Amino acid sequence: MASGRLLVEILSIGDELLMGQTVNTNAAWMGHLLENEGWRVNRCVAVSDEEEAIVDALKDAESRAELVLITGGLGPTRDDITKHVLCQHFGTQLVRHPEIENRIVSWFERRGRPVLQVNRDQALLPQSCKPLDNPLGTASGMWFDRPGGVTVSMPGVPYEMEHIMEHGVIPAMRSQLELQGRLPKRGHMSLLTMGTGESQLALTLGDMEEELERGGIKLAYLPSPGSVRIRLTAEGEAVQQLAQAHAAVLDRLSDWVVSETGVPIDEALGQFLVSQGHTLAVAESCTGGALGAALVSRAGASAFFLGGVQCYSNAAKEQLLAVDGALISEFGAVSEEVAVAMAQGARKKFGADFGVSITGIAGPDGGSDLKPVGTVYMACEGPLGVMCVRHQFGRDRTRNLSMSVRAAAQLALKAAREWAIESKPASGVADSL
Amino acid sequence: MASGRLLVEILSIGDELLMGQTVNTNAAWMGHLLENEGWRVNRCVAVSDEEEAIVDALKDAESRAELVLITGGLGPTRDDITKHVLCQHFGTQLVRHPEIENRIVSWFERRGRPVLQVNRDQALLPQSCKPLDNPLGTASGMWFDRPGGVTVSMPGVPYEMEHIMEHGVIPAMRSQLELQGRLPKRGHMSLLTMGTGESQLALTLGDMEEELERGGIKLAYLPSPGSVRIRLTAEGEAVQQLAQAHAAVLDRLSDWVVSETGVPIDEALGQFLVSQGHTLAVAESCTGGALGAALVSRAGASAFFLGGVQCYSNAAKEQLLAVDGALISEFGAVSEEVAVAMAQGARKKFGADFGVSITGIAGPDGGSDLKPVGTVYMACEGPLGVMCVRHQFGRDRTRNLSMSVRAAAQLALKAAREWAIESKPASGVADSL
Repeated sequence: MASGRLLVEILSIGDELLMGQTVNTNAAWMGHLLENEGWRVNRCVAVSDEEEAIVDALKDAESRAELVLITGGLGPTRDDITKHVLCQHFGTQLVRHPEIENRIVSWFERRGRPVLQVNRDQALLPQSCKPLDNPLGTASGMWFDRPGGVTVSMPGVPYEMEHIMEHGVIPAMRSQLELQGRLPKRGHMSLLTMGTGESQLALTLGDMEEELERGGIKLAYLPSPGSVRIRLTAEGEAVQQLAQAHAAVLDRLSDWVVSETGVPIDEALGQFLVSQGHTLAVAESCTGGALGAALVSRAGASAFFLGGVQCYSNAAKEQLLAVDGALISEFGAVSEEVAVAMAQGARKKFGADFGVSITGIAGPDGGSDLKPVGTVYMACEGPLGVMCVRHQFGRDRTRNLSMSVRAAAQLALKAAREWAIESKPASGVADSL
Repeated sequence: MASGRLLVEILSIGDELLMGQTVNTNAAWMGHLLENEGWRVNRCVAVSDEEEAIVDALKDAESRAELVLITGGLGPTRDDITKHVLCQHFGTQLVRHPEIENRIVSWFERRGRPVLQVNRDQALLPQSCKPLDNPLGTASGMWFDRPGGVTVSMPGVPYEMEHIMEHGVIPAMRSQLELQGRLPKRGHMSLLTMGTGESQLALTLGDMEEELERGGIKLAYLPSPGSVRIRLTAEGEAVQQLAQAHAAVLDRLSDWVVSETGVPIDEALGQFLVSQGHTLAVAESCTGGALGAALVSRAGASAFFLGGVQCYSNAAKEQLLAVDGALISEFGAVSEEVAVAMAQGARKKFGADFGVSITGIAGPDGGSDLKPVGTVYMACEGPLGVMCVRHQFGRDRTRNLSMSVRAAAQLALKAAREWAIESKPASGVADSL
């Protein structure tokens, strides 16, 4: 193998990628993981399920890259031809692996589904490959040693591929590089900001960014709707300066930092509430449950999340959250008054420390001059009182809903932090305890 | 230009794509649009912001494809080098377009932001290209006629690229093909199945698939967690047989079809409820609101969705949905008895025609021998009575949650359809009304 930084190419197989039926999230997921390892992704190519196209792109990739990662085309149907193409390419033939066949059979038995011959044939693998275990599906990964490097083929189902990457490919590749003394020393730290854009953040950092770069620490701005994640990457000796650099960036951007570790805002909220032993309930109108769904998407949510009411209709607001119908008549369902009453209702109904509400006009219809599409009110009531914010998002429904969820989590985190500061005993008293 | 079907390749430029900071949604969006035109996307390649990599990939693409579409690398900062690379590649030089510069200046003025020289220089374009108007940003598209075809360069910002594609590239390409008598005739129809896998579906279709293919209609299986979408594509004269083929496939797969048009299950549920004038409320435990969020993700949900309760805690199940605490003690929160009581509670509290519930063990912890991780009960109560299903999903929390949402929507659709059939008056009576 070559020396220096490992060069990787990704080859995604499948007509559905070219026809835009499937977005190639696999390539992005792999790129992110490989970048974190300190390896370099040189090219990503998507080709159709055709032998000539696959072989052509594979030869091309192998001529440049030490590690070639192939995804897709390993299903049981006849349009999945990757395995046969690999046999041709590596001059080998399919052999049956009885232990893999047993695993496939029990995989179907556990699900109470019949095992067809095509499913059993998933245990046929090229003789020259080392199979990589796939406990989440029926198509094994395949590791081929070749002159100049390694080629790995994996199924295109994201979580199956991810498992094989994390448990098969990355550890094996790391061992090879370690033996060769080529494992790069590399560190990452992140932070998450909300409330301003990339260019304002860069302007605020000013010459700090260049200074860090001279010291071997690179900054990357990763914008999403409503937030910008900043990632610091150090290589070699600079790894030792990483924590200090991270602290300096946090300090400079303190007005906008919502998560010092860079975890998503809903995760940061959950972590903070758990650290304080506090609980939360939600009242969601336009988002229909998306804030609650985000909060429970990670394990351990029951330590802080009590539940909520999806009060999409006005009747639900009144009957389940005891929102005064007169408030809705007077100010409208999308108003500060109703947002506050919803938050209070959720807090009270669930006996939670914090109640968070969202009510807005997601669009595309329902807007007015005073409250155009994208108007969203959110409130958080806690032991100290209530906070309410009006946001004016855009015209896109999907984007408005996801922005609302993030902004509501941000508001709740702010309220929870303020209460934690206010309720903390003065340090003299704490010392004497 | 060549005859027959237009062959297209997509070249995406940007380190952020290789490092997984950005998912290449542009390629999927373009692929979808091009496929609908009946053109064929042959390959999608993503390369870094480096001259050699860009030129290498561009030459490669131009050697195969009649139309090469480039995105990215047209920003005002110094890492955006596409324009210079194109000048080199096409042996031309940059010239200033005063009318484009005026547009850029007024673009900044409208936003009250200063115009920098780098912004004005966006009006410098390669002499041999035909500029394509970009009213949404400052980087123009560029159309290059070349031996054997056309190469187009566009900015990587999705909505700018989309505008240039829809208003510049597609109409111009269509005119060229029309002049050559090469505009293809093409049609698509889809259906959505749940409850079985790709291989079982293919087996059930048997020789029907080959028969359709001989008649010019191709089938594609597009699996997602819990469902498989099947797409029929007809070319040329076969377009006239498409509806008949679709009906035949629907009939053969009737045990598993959940949406005859192929729309997602939650959308199919909403459409059906609206068509019947019925309403729905939800009671979500482990999913925390994800079913409600899915139902409101599309506009018009208020026509059928009344709301729900995110009863993550047992107290919430009892207090907000009037689930008998004794049921929870005796059978556990994840049980048929509690799922049914939750569905009944939601239906009653919201006064809905249908109440749907989800309660399960999403994982990774909380499982037992009798109810391992992945055990999810869901129930639907309607005017005819109640249905309850126990699912055994896998070990992955994220997947278990999304499978639960889809399965609950499927259950509700089944219940709503049965009620629609049962409640329909006999035809003789209907005729006399």
